[in-house]
Amino acid sequence: MNTTERGRALSEELNPGMEDALNERYGHLVPGMAEGVVDFAYGRQYARDGLDLKSRYIATIAALTALGGQTKPQLKVNIAGGRKAGLTQQEIGEVIWQMALYGGFPAAINGLNAALEVFEAE
Amino acid sequence: MNTTERGRALSEELNPGMEDALNERYGHLVPGMAEGVVDFAYGRQYARDGLDLKSRYIATIAALTALGGQTKPQLKVNIAGGRKAGLTQQEIGEVIWQMALYGGFPAAINGLNAALEVFEAE
Amino acid sequence: MNTTERGRALSEELNPGMEDALNERYGHLVPGMAEGVVDFAYGRQYARDGLDLKSRYIATIAALTALGGQTKPQLKVNIAGGRKAGLTQQEIGEVIWQMALYGGFPAAINGLNAALEVFEAE
Amino acid sequence: MNTTERGRALSEELNPGMEDALNERYGHLVPGMAEGVVDFAYGRQYARDGLDLKSRYIATIAALTALGGQTKPQLKVNIAGGRKAGLTQQEIGEVIWQMALYGGFPAAINGLNAALEVFEAE
Amino acid sequence: MNTTERGRALSEELNPGMEDALNERYGHLVPGMAEGVVDFAYGRQYARDGLDLKSRYIATIAALTALGGQTKPQLKVNIAGGRKAGLTQQEIGEVIWQMALYGGFPAAINGLNAALEVFEAE
Amino acid sequence: MNTTERGRALSEELNPGMEDALNERYGHLVPGMAEGVVDFAYGRQYARDGLDLKSRYIATIAALTALGGQTKPQLKVNIAGGRKAGLTQQEIGEVIWQMALYGGFPAAINGLNAALEVFEAE
Repeated sequence: MNTTERGRALSEELNPGMEDALNERYGHLVPGMAEGVVDFAYGRQYARDGLDLKSRYIATIAALTALGGQTKPQLKVNIAGGRKAGLTQQEIGEVIWQMALYGGFPAAINGLNAALEVFEAE
Repeated sequence: MNTTERGRALSEELNPGMEDALNERYGHLVPGMAEGVVDFAYGRQYARDGLDLKSRYIATIAALTALGGQTKPQLKVNIAGGRKAGLTQQEIGEVIWQMALYGGFPAAINGLNAALEVFEAE
Repeated sequence: MNTTERGRALSEELNPGMEDALNERYGHLVPGMAEGVVDFAYGRQYARDGLDLKSRYIATIAALTALGGQTKPQLKVNIAGGRKAGLTQQEIGEVIWQMALYGGFPAAINGLNAALEVFEAE
Repeated sequence: MNTTERGRALSEELNPGMEDALNERYGHLVPGMAEGVVDFAYGRQYARDGLDLKSRYIATIAALTALGGQTKPQLKVNIAGGRKAGLTQQEIGEVIWQMALYGGFPAAINGLNAALEVFEAE
Repeated sequence: MNTTERGRALSEELNPGMEDALNERYGHLVPGMAEGVVDFAYGRQYARDGLDLKSRYIATIAALTALGGQTKPQLKVNIAGGRKAGLTQQEIGEVIWQMALYGGFPAAINGLNAALEVFEAE
Repeated sequence: MNTTERGRALSEELNPGMEDALNERYGHLVPGMAEGVVDFAYGRQYARDGLDLKSRYIATIAALTALGGQTKPQLKVNIAGGRKAGLTQQEIGEVIWQMALYGGFPAAINGLNAALEVFEAE
């Protein structure tokens, strides 16, 4: 299985329909963009060995929180993904609040708000 | 044990001598700053329940990598801390490289360079 | 008076009810988070000697503007706080517009928009 | 023609009415701010020799995308400006998607969303 | 006195020789850049009414600290400028450490290091 | 030719030996990382149709300047790449200085310093 196939399998498991949705929304403007996401983000990153999926979501939730609220849609997608990968609500809350130390208090509070929105929708 | 004592115990375990070093370097300019770090960063964050220490270091290494190389000294301190908490070199490499997706390729490559410096010093 | 009590007194003066509101919204997810904000942000920062409160709000408004619009809710809270601490609308406008030099023109203009929203609500 | 006049001529060509709009919205709070934008941003930057206007918009669209979605209003203004300066929708899509490498995937996707909104309004 | 002359007078007072130094270093590559700095940064920002110079330096030191250590040379220049404008070492230390709340602990500590370097050179 | 092959051809043309260098430095820690860079950054981004290479370098130089000096090594690599792709020193200077508007004056000045280092080495 090459990286694209491996990425497609994982992306379908974690975010069913995502590749099609990207293609439909962005494909006419940036042809091949969806396949690039599947191959690189999923096939060559999340599907790699050496770090379990729960830890990968911890890393992503931490980074998007610290980078600030402008990535709120993606933060919410990854909080939901982390829940599927087995993270508890508490673990996610802890990761986000710890980011007060690195991204500042406003970023951490905005991150908690994103988490609450995801948890309320569960 | 209050948060300051709990933080002091953990900070001494993870970074022996850090509180004294902060006091000596910054205490004349910002009195009480070292105790604030011990109480808030260690006692009220890293020493919290709900997330194991390895995961906390994954979150921190991810965030500092994504925020960019300007925090290289702190990134290196936390990579070393993560090693003490039980993360393998491979796990740390995976966390950092995954940040190519969120902080960009230059940030991820700068993060790998920081990790290599820590690993070479081991 | 310890740092938590000192922080609580100041936070109640500047943002009455904030600690309770944080507890109600985030306490089930991140227990103790509200006390951490009160102790560290208020007791160990804003309540410190060595810099008057007006200057502290100038620093905060400047930083949140330069960091970009993703912290708009917190920027608005701090603009309102700066007004309570005695800053004029003009002084706040000057601080924000000066940030064109450091955070860029879009960040400064977004900051002015936040200020106008606060001033209109006065 | 001094830098203010040169800036005014170009700003009126690219964004008719902008100086008046800035004056009306911000002039009471930050007197002279609109003239500063006209003089510095247009007269001393966009109106300079040495780089054609299309390339200047490529640079701006790239930077605002990489800096993240908090500058979405300004990103949309500059995407529309780039279209007036002769950039195709495809060129703009390419610039934005390339920013996945430098500002991360979420920033690039948020940038594409801004572009789609501008293109739909054309 | 127009904005360029007003800016030149203030920049010569605060940073004697700066315009010439900028011209010599960057003028062959970006003609007029030094005058743009003098006119916009000094004449249209720092020389404005409505906020005293000490407060302007507080704002700048806060922002550059929060934005992170990549602007260390400029942070040091502005710390030295703030000292000239009358800020005490303690006030500057307070401004910088407060940024732990907004730019994170690593950014604040890097800012303190920049301040110590300036103070040691005094 | 698939995306990896297309990327390898372009990367060898623009940065001869880069893939081998990445492999040697990072391959033991993050296996496959170099191929991922070649495939995604070169094959799926820089080698795409729809935007000429000069414009791609304008976009990259602009973004790395605006993101701040922490990516100085990568900014220098891309300034050198832009020169190979046909950008003049003046065009690069203009792109960088324009970023004063979006990333702030310190970021733009740090970017000019990076450019001067590259130009002096030519």
